[in-house]
Amino acid sequence: MKILENMSVTDVSGFQAVGIHCGIKKNGKKDLCILYSKKPAVAAAALTTNTVKAAPLQVNIEHLKSDTTQAIVINSGNANACTGASGLQDAKEMANITAEALGLSPQQVMVSSTGIIGVPMPMHVIIPGIKAACEMLDSGNGSSAAEAIMTTDSFLKQITVEITLDNQPVRISGFAKGSGMVHPNMATMLSFVVTNANISKSMLSTALKESVSDSYNMISVDGDTSTNDMVIALANGTAKNTIIDVENENYTLFKQALDYVNTELAKLIAKDGEGATKFIEVSLHNACTKKDAKLCAKSVISSNLVKSAFFGADANWGRIMCALGYSGGAFSPDSVDVFFKNDKGTLQLVQDSAGLPFDEDLAKKILDESYVNIVINLKDGQYSATAWGCDLSYEYVKINGAYRT
Amino acid sequence: MKILENMSVTDVSGFQAVGIHCGIKKNGKKDLCILYSKKPAVAAAALTTNTVKAAPLQVNIEHLKSDTTQAIVINSGNANACTGASGLQDAKEMANITAEALGLSPQQVMVSSTGIIGVPMPMHVIIPGIKAACEMLDSGNGSSAAEAIMTTDSFLKQITVEITLDNQPVRISGFAKGSGMVHPNMATMLSFVVTNANISKSMLSTALKESVSDSYNMISVDGDTSTNDMVIALANGTAKNTIIDVENENYTLFKQALDYVNTELAKLIAKDGEGATKFIEVSLHNACTKKDAKLCAKSVISSNLVKSAFFGADANWGRIMCALGYSGGAFSPDSVDVFFKNDKGTLQLVQDSAGLPFDEDLAKKILDESYVNIVINLKDGQYSATAWGCDLSYEYVKINGAYRT
Repeated sequence: MKILENMSVTDVSGFQAVGIHCGIKKNGKKDLCILYSKKPAVAAAALTTNTVKAAPLQVNIEHLKSDTTQAIVINSGNANACTGASGLQDAKEMANITAEALGLSPQQVMVSSTGIIGVPMPMHVIIPGIKAACEMLDSGNGSSAAEAIMTTDSFLKQITVEITLDNQPVRISGFAKGSGMVHPNMATMLSFVVTNANISKSMLSTALKESVSDSYNMISVDGDTSTNDMVIALANGTAKNTIIDVENENYTLFKQALDYVNTELAKLIAKDGEGATKFIEVSLHNACTKKDAKLCAKSVISSNLVKSAFFGADANWGRIMCALGYSGGAFSPDSVDVFFKNDKGTLQLVQDSAGLPFDEDLAKKILDESYVNIVINLKDGQYSATAWGCDLSYEYVKINGAYRT
Repeated sequence: MKILENMSVTDVSGFQAVGIHCGIKKNGKKDLCILYSKKPAVAAAALTTNTVKAAPLQVNIEHLKSDTTQAIVINSGNANACTGASGLQDAKEMANITAEALGLSPQQVMVSSTGIIGVPMPMHVIIPGIKAACEMLDSGNGSSAAEAIMTTDSFLKQITVEITLDNQPVRISGFAKGSGMVHPNMATMLSFVVTNANISKSMLSTALKESVSDSYNMISVDGDTSTNDMVIALANGTAKNTIIDVENENYTLFKQALDYVNTELAKLIAKDGEGATKFIEVSLHNACTKKDAKLCAKSVISSNLVKSAFFGADANWGRIMCALGYSGGAFSPDSVDVFFKNDKGTLQLVQDSAGLPFDEDLAKKILDESYVNIVINLKDGQYSATAWGCDLSYEYVKINGAYRT
């Protein structure tokens, strides 16, 4: 697998995109984008598990039933969530306008929104915006689309890789936004992945489902699952490899590349969590089951006390033991080892669930870095899991405690 | 039911107590207490669900099997958690020394600790401390015991009530500590309730189990469940009411009084959550089941985004909808009403899951108060639940991000 630098979704054959400012955001930044496949593509999606689903998600649940998908229309600045029947109508209208402009059926268009909850969509700027954007679609604009879904993300999040299937170059490229917040309720995780691989809708859906559970579902910024979270993958088959419709060797190669793309995007989201000063990776080893490994790793990365300790560069391993203990994951409570690791060194703090005397200076050196790897060995079984997150800083509280004006 | 002001556990007939400074805390504050029943009492306990259980909890699981209990020895300043085999030995030693000094069997003594995780117990000060404290036991010292379990709690937490059973005055008195933190890992919820009611061990245990699930289990400060959480109830039967050994009318009266004591102590803990500037009460109405009601209420009170918004006096109802949605509780997502309430007024922000235009000035007035009631009406069924918590402030991060020195 090759990683292609400085490329975007429009470097995958058959895909076009564009991002523009249509007027949803008051600061003049891009707030609307269209992602388009010239050839009918198959789509798979993972939508938020939140019971309160934003209007676009309700539309996509229907449109996913279509055999083919050719476009995704995405806006930032307004989540179109908790907006009632008119909000649902607006989301459908976004699909309709896009379909009309591109000569598609509405069912071939997916809709995505991120922004404030509970505010009606400014359709008077969105409708002309969609029409204008569809006119501007081309094959060199992927980054402008990635830019248009950013809210307070501090950097662009996109990645492109290439694999070879049946001697055909196959590319997978994705872009995402993380949960930055300036305006209340703008937290949402959105990710869009496209590929020219020739793969059936059902296999793409299988691959995405598994991939999401090990990537986006293993990050936490603040434990609050958005009403708008969405990952969509499009495969247009222009790569001419023999269609992947069973779990064969090509499927495995494709899945590995897809996992890489999703995991890298997920890590970028965790790194850019609001107020984050540190990127934390939890490597959980030797659990009895995959489920136990994931529960334990996710619990540690989600703990406010662990996150606060890392913000304070505090070698506070007791909080890690505590978070493991309430994770719901099964493990032997008397045999846990805990280490902190990065390029400053490796430090063991806990052996068999009891504290070891440790070098406080080395601990401080490791914890003062912007990346820290918490390595946990349960010594119970063979299953491992990795989770990613960030620390809990004053800035997080400041950003999210701002009075809405 | 009468609420008795300025009384403590030693105002319940047959109970003695004392709190002293034995030297675990370096600041000279009280750090050890003994609670003693002159007559063999029956005990019930609720212990942390954390898989990583501190040594005293492992001892109590055994000692709870004893038909009678007469003493509880409690220290603050060291949690005796993640201290291995020697920690377990130290906890047993604390029970043995107490039993010896009071002429009891070790099985009649419960042990409780709160403080830093992973540090060996300073038995050289604890052993003489226990002996000295047992000498000083008397019937006017309840408040000194309550003081001795405080860590960074900003106020003493105790309450006493009286009911009449079979024309006999029956008292229930309890004291508790909340999760204040100055030194890393000192967060723990401890609560001790004594009564002179004549009640069987099994009925006391039934009553406590139910009572805990609606009181202590419905508060959240930071979502981190301690390794040391413990609630113990002792009933010594000196009130001379006919023994309560079935769910009769006396049981109901006793249970109501016990619920009141536990709920008030739980609310005091939430009010005193670390860094808290606001006490938040979530009243969840008309869920389909009690479980759904509790899951929804607990999810809202535990959300970092909701807590941050309240710190910032931000009428951010979208985060409340979001937290309801990922709570795991079932509800109709399109019929939720949300109100903010306190002595400044009542403000409806959401009707049928959609935002209402609201008076931002009134919202600010309500949210600037130190108490805010979030009222949520699911309009699904007849079940209600209440949860209590606090806001998420800079101070929380500051307290918990402090480097350990």
